[in-house]
Amino acid sequence: MGVAAIRRNDARIEEAVAALKALLGDRLSTARAILDQHGKDESYHPVMAPDAVAFAESTEEVAEIVKICAAHKVPMIPFGTGTSLEGGVAALQGGVTIDVSHMNKILEVNAQDLDCRVQAGVTRKQLNEHLRDTGLFFPIDPGADASLGGMASTRASGTNAVRYGTMRENVLSLTVVTADGRIIKTARRSKKSAAGYDLTRLFVGSEGTLGIVTEVAVRLYGVPERISSAVCAFPDLEGAVNSVILIIQSGIPVARMELLDEVQMGACIAYSKLEGYQAAPTLFFEFHGTEAGVAEQIEMVKSIAGDFGGTDFKWATKAEERTALWEARHKAYYAALALRPGAKGWPTDVCVPISRLAECILETKKDIEASGMLAPLVGHVGDGNFHLVYVIDPDRPEELAQANALNDRMVLRALAMEGTCTGEHGIGYGKMDFLVAEAGEAVSVMRQIKLALDPDNLMNPGKILRI
Amino acid sequence: MGVAAIRRNDARIEEAVAALKALLGDRLSTARAILDQHGKDESYHPVMAPDAVAFAESTEEVAEIVKICAAHKVPMIPFGTGTSLEGGVAALQGGVTIDVSHMNKILEVNAQDLDCRVQAGVTRKQLNEHLRDTGLFFPIDPGADASLGGMASTRASGTNAVRYGTMRENVLSLTVVTADGRIIKTARRSKKSAAGYDLTRLFVGSEGTLGIVTEVAVRLYGVPERISSAVCAFPDLEGAVNSVILIIQSGIPVARMELLDEVQMGACIAYSKLEGYQAAPTLFFEFHGTEAGVAEQIEMVKSIAGDFGGTDFKWATKAEERTALWEARHKAYYAALALRPGAKGWPTDVCVPISRLAECILETKKDIEASGMLAPLVGHVGDGNFHLVYVIDPDRPEELAQANALNDRMVLRALAMEGTCTGEHGIGYGKMDFLVAEAGEAVSVMRQIKLALDPDNLMNPGKILRI
Repeated sequence: MGVAAIRRNDARIEEAVAALKALLGDRLSTARAILDQHGKDESYHPVMAPDAVAFAESTEEVAEIVKICAAHKVPMIPFGTGTSLEGGVAALQGGVTIDVSHMNKILEVNAQDLDCRVQAGVTRKQLNEHLRDTGLFFPIDPGADASLGGMASTRASGTNAVRYGTMRENVLSLTVVTADGRIIKTARRSKKSAAGYDLTRLFVGSEGTLGIVTEVAVRLYGVPERISSAVCAFPDLEGAVNSVILIIQSGIPVARMELLDEVQMGACIAYSKLEGYQAAPTLFFEFHGTEAGVAEQIEMVKSIAGDFGGTDFKWATKAEERTALWEARHKAYYAALALRPGAKGWPTDVCVPISRLAECILETKKDIEASGMLAPLVGHVGDGNFHLVYVIDPDRPEELAQANALNDRMVLRALAMEGTCTGEHGIGYGKMDFLVAEAGEAVSVMRQIKLALDPDNLMNPGKILRI
Repeated sequence: MGVAAIRRNDARIEEAVAALKALLGDRLSTARAILDQHGKDESYHPVMAPDAVAFAESTEEVAEIVKICAAHKVPMIPFGTGTSLEGGVAALQGGVTIDVSHMNKILEVNAQDLDCRVQAGVTRKQLNEHLRDTGLFFPIDPGADASLGGMASTRASGTNAVRYGTMRENVLSLTVVTADGRIIKTARRSKKSAAGYDLTRLFVGSEGTLGIVTEVAVRLYGVPERISSAVCAFPDLEGAVNSVILIIQSGIPVARMELLDEVQMGACIAYSKLEGYQAAPTLFFEFHGTEAGVAEQIEMVKSIAGDFGGTDFKWATKAEERTALWEARHKAYYAALALRPGAKGWPTDVCVPISRLAECILETKKDIEASGMLAPLVGHVGDGNFHLVYVIDPDRPEELAQANALNDRMVLRALAMEGTCTGEHGIGYGKMDFLVAEAGEAVSVMRQIKLALDPDNLMNPGKILRI
């Protein structure tokens, strides 16, 4: 299976693979199954396999691999867990995938400074497991158990972003291997700095197109004294979204506030066997703080939700109940896919200013209903960010075309509302045209930067920008 | 007075000035007083005057000015209020200063989205004055009443950063004129985005070396229900700093937490005629939140401070009392200068991980005492950031040399503690060597970006990087 990549340097790739083999031995693979697995992310995008996969074990080794690939002008694609959603790992022009999943050491935890440094292959769950006895946690949680290198590279966020920010706010510094194999550290460990260009933020979200992230230093947070989760169903989507808007505008520091429409809620109930819930527009909340602070937040949120018809709050205060609830939320994507066995998911996301959220969601929902497509809606609505999953058979061109048309309309709607074509999934090769529509002339500045740092266009080519 | 700039393009500058005169009329000045005023910031750095000052009134006009300067290969220096501290506005190679202080329109306030967009010349006080009746405020407050364009360009922070972040976290998007006169917008208005490179963060802190900021969109915050300020003296500096460290590590969301050593506190008492305070190591606090939340924070902070000997809390809950207190704090620099009439100030700042703060401050203090210099210490210590002002006569080489030696030791100490050579003042041309010491190979990546976006090195040349 799989679509053939437009390979280049067929002659030189063999030389590069031979040199890499000499460096890495068994950790350089050209086995078909390994190649295919590395050419595919979690979305409907077809397999675009690389010519070889290099399993690196250190920053220095990544630098050596990059030098070899650069010398042979062979494309390089970084790979963490392969859970990207816009085709980020596809080897569009062949080349060598640099898999950092073996780089999974937690290098330091500075509990007194609320920060830590890990290798790029460490996943968010692994980090939190490691932190369990420290009283600290790392809040950023995209649905998948992604690697921190991948999360940094796509500027990931997730359910906690409304309170704790995204990878943009939470990465303190990165170790990066540049396109010519130099090793740089983007920042020091102090909380703030005015020293020179913000290379940390430049590499966060650059999707491997400017260099390869090998180490990530992030902020940590104290586990709150009190955590309470609640689920609240609403009679209609509008009431749920308007509650969100008012909660945000009131400055209530909710830690999580997630919307599931009735289709997605139904899917989650079925998939995660949730009992006592109804397939209605629903908000999932979580409150973090002191005993008194959480009580205060809850009172304010209940009052606002009540005004919009959301009255039936179901509470989960015990850790295991909360975990079950959020597990169900994090599995929303798989729950959506389970609605149509054998189908694939095309997940997409946009983000708009909070004042436009109700309008954007309701118009989008109307579009979906008119199309008759299966496309559950779920979102980190506290940030103005929401997702659709078009549940399709990608081998049926008419379904792809229909999803494309719906997606175009949704993204252009978000742009017209001063929003962005992606709140957290990234551009990959799925949204390059939308980036041009969104950023206009700024894309040419991005291109100048890309060409300065990667003049041969070897770093994850074909992603974010057309060169 | 003043040091002569190493001018370049003496022949072509006249052509550029003539073209600018035709474009701007009276708004292009070559008057000596205007030139000198624009060649000097608030620090001890000597006047380095430009050849002309262009007073722009719109983004489009800045673009026209830039095109003329670029065509004649004449350096361009952006100017807001001239309150930078590392020589940022100095025309080191002559050229044209582009003064944006006439660009002082507030373009939009989106109260529902907690954001606004202003022209680059709007100052922080002007913005907050404008917001007064909206229930919103903009928290970033460097001591001076700086322009938002300048604050963005130096990645400014101030007393509220410990809770609200710096310009890095609070700029939503920028309008920028590139070195070749194109106009770009770096981002949309949504709270987050994963669409392409983070140009916003790249231009924030770039000190005018990559382009000229003409509009700034920033986040706003609801004025808290309850605000309380307090001042607490400590028997020694160590106790004050250790209180800060423990408060931060406990996750108490103080809005402001400022340290003044006994020299600085004495200066402020004298300069701002504060009554009932003593010239001792002192913390200034501010608490924001709900009634109950603030009460809770205060209790925790009092308990921690008490353990380190800080017991005599003086409270200011009325708006005018609070304003007087923070005015005194913001005038710390001028108060320090007033200790030695006729002297100049050399303000410097470093920032370290909070766990190293006590060590860094106490060693620095010992150095100062050994030197016999007058150098009050003040700091945004909640961020691990503190300042010294060397109060010197810059015409006495031995004083400059002594300040230089002290400064070297302080910065290298901060770097050895994984800190940064500047938490908020920027590099300017005062700290370029330290940037190299701090960032190492990363400086070469910064240089690649600079040369890509400004190949002729015309944008504020001689700042941040040696090209």
